Order: sequence, then structure tokens, then C-alpha cells
Amino acid sequence: MTELPPTDRTRLRRAHERGRYDRGTIDAILDAQPVCHIAYLRDGTPALLPTLQWREGDHVYWHGSSASHALRAQDGAEVCLAVTLLDGLVLARSGFHHSVNYRSVTIYGRARRIEDPRRKERHLEAFFERLLPGRWPTLRPVTEQELKATAVLSLPIREASAKLRNGPPVDEEADYGLPIWAGVLPLRTAIGTPVPDPRNPEGLPLPPEVRTFRIG
Amino acid sequence: MTELPPTDRTRLRRAHERGRYDRGTIDAILDAQPVCHIAYLRDGTPALLPTLQWREGDHVYWHGSSASHALRAQDGAEVCLAVTLLDGLVLARSGFHHSVNYRSVTIYGRARRIEDPRRKERHLEAFFERLLPGRWPTLRPVTEQELKATAVLSLPIREASAKLRNGPPVDEEADYGLPIWAGVLPLRTAIGTPVPDPRNPEGLPLPPEVRTFRIG
Repeated sequence: MTELPPTDRTRLRRAHERGRYDRGTIDAILDAQPVCHIAYLRDGTPALLPTLQWREGDHVYWHGSSASHALRAQDGAEVCLAVTLLDGLVLARSGFHHSVNYRSVTIYGRARRIEDPRRKERHLEAFFERLLPGRWPTLRPVTEQELKATAVLSLPIREASAKLRNGPPVDEEADYGLPIWAGVLPLRTAIGTPVPDPRNPEGLPLPPEVRTFRIG
Repeated sequence: MTELPPTDRTRLRRAHERGRYDRGTIDAILDAQPVCHIAYLRDGTPALLPTLQWREGDHVYWHGSSASHALRAQDGAEVCLAVTLLDGLVLARSGFHHSVNYRSVTIYGRARRIEDPRRKERHLEAFFERLLPGRWPTLRPVTEQELKATAVLSLPIREASAKLRNGPPVDEEADYGLPIWAGVLPLRTAIGTPVPDPRNPEGLPLPPEVRTFRIG
């Protein structure tokens, strides 16, 4: 299991037991949750882009409009990308020891825009393969104009760390005797019933990638 | 309904129809999802703190350890706070028109640390009242030492905007005739069965704030 060397930006200074630097843990979190937030600088102040990321090997990728100011500002610039899964509320016997169970990844580095249209197309296909395997080949093929209108950015998973908490509350020893309900309220992403587009041709079956979609 | 004046940082430059600047929409999103990401500068490069926020009137608040480097760096500094809810995958007939349904809020401004211990305590109580109404008075009271160890930061909801998408895919007119299943796969946060701490006294009933907890 590849272990990433912690840096000044990724080393946990407190709650060390929650930190992980192995790629197995980092990759599993990235693969479980496409939603990410990307911090970048705009005119010298911090800004945030919420978007979807996907992982291919040693990089994460995201995409958007070629006209996006956020994606233009990120190209060649230092960014910080975070993926966070809230797994539960941790209810303790004191306010102070309340917490949350979570899995999170933070990646620092320089974002790079993919210029070559064929590479862009391959990465977009890989995005679909990760999120909705098998769907891409069933779609109306992407046009050159659409590829031109789409920006794809990449970030190496090099300066990265994961942070996790799970399990019951940890209270002051003296508080365990108090008649206060403590425990964990688990949270997860639930997938609802698919809503077909009213303009679908009649009798179209639900495709397998929608039936088997998983997240979290 | 109070309308916030858009600024260079909050005005949507594309997909204008997705932007909202009214406090009703902004507040509803902040109140629906405690998880937030806060972008700030650390040694000149962007960094991210995933944490929980809560709203009181015209401010959002978050808390953490007084020893936290992130919270120290944020005090008095420009930050960007984002709250994002993923409501569904939008599956179109072309890769290009795939999208997500979501609700998000972005707030820019200068974060301020609350210094007075009594004010800190009131804000922490307000946090509990929003997330788990009625729980705070049932807990072992907070100590002066715990208050000292806890930092609370605030950010005014002044330079803020919401962004939303919902509804079915919007495809190229020519693509609607294709035999491709299109539609929406709804996503939401599900609350699992509460897991009592094994060290709870026997026979303790599940408290109402846990039974009635809602998120999303």
C-alpha cells in the first residue's frame, strides 16, 4: 500500500490517530463520493468551486465549461481539493464531546488543464465509466464543438491525506454514569426511485447503470 | 424577502437562471445542511476546512479547537464558505447534457472569532438548538476549561449567493427521439437506526431530538 509522505500542509497536528496517508484509504474515499470542493485564488482572495471529481490512477479530474472563470483561474494555479462524507452524528454526554463520524480527503497541488481534444474525450469517458459504467457507449457521441466547450482539469494525488472518525462517543470517564442517551446517529446517501424524463420514448427499460448506481 | 446585492464575487456570469440572491433561498439551504467547506489562505496558498456551520440571523458560525491552525488562520481573514446539497444525477441523451440537481450557497467575507466566553456558550447552545433541539439542557454543563478550548468563528451573510438546479435533463431537440433512457436519479441524506453507546445506562429511552432529527 503506497504511503504518501506528509508535508507541512497535509500532516495532522492534532488528533493524529484520525490521519491516514496511504493511497488505499485516500483512493477509497475519492471513489466513494464524486462531490468535491475546490479552493482557489481569485483576485487574491479564496474562492470555492463545488463540482464532481473522478479519479484515474494517480490523478483526480474535474470538468466544466471552457468559459468558466473558476476553471480558468485554477489552470496552472495552486488549489486545494476536498472530498467529505458525513457518516453520522456522534452524540455524547457533554456538548464538548459531541462529534461527527466522517471520511475526508484533502489534496494540495497545481491544477493543469488538459488541452488535447482526444485526451479530453478519453477522460470524460473515464468519468462516466466510474460513475455510470456502461452508459457512455449508449449515448449520442460527443461532438468536436462540445469538446471545445468543455474544460477538463487534473490534479496529482501526491500531497494528500485522509482524515477519518468512526465509532461511539468518547466521554469524560465521570460522565458515563449520567442518565443521558449517548450514541451514534448514522447518515448515508440514499438513492431514490429513478424519475424517467416525460419525453422518453415509451417502453424504454431502466438501464443497468441506473439500476445498480452506488454512492457513498 | 431580503435581496442581497450581487458583487463581482457572487454574480453568476453563466447559467444566470440558476442564481438566487434572496435571503429566503440562501437561509433555507444553510439550514438544511450543516456540512460546509471553508476556503482560506495558509502561507499564501488556498486551504480547505470541512466542518459544520449553523446560522443565527444574519451570520453563519462554526467552531473547533482553540489550538486549530485553520481557525487561527481564518480569524480576521477573508474566507469563502460553501454549503452544497446534491439532490440527484441528471441523465441526458448526450454526455454533454448530463448534469446534477443541487442546492448550494457561497458566502464571502471576513471571519471573526468570538472572544467572550458567555457569548461563545450562547452560540454553542444555538448550534445545538438548530441541530438537536432540546438536547443542550439535558447535557452535562460545559466547563470554563472546555469553553477556553473551543473557538467559535462568525461570518456575515452579506456577500452571498445561492445556486440551484432541478428538474429533468435539457437535451438537444434532435436527441429527444433517440432510444436512450433519460431522467433523474434522486439522491438524499438518509438517517439510519440510532446506535446506542454500549455504556449507556440500561433502559434509557431514545430522546425526542434524536427521534425527530432531520437533515437535507
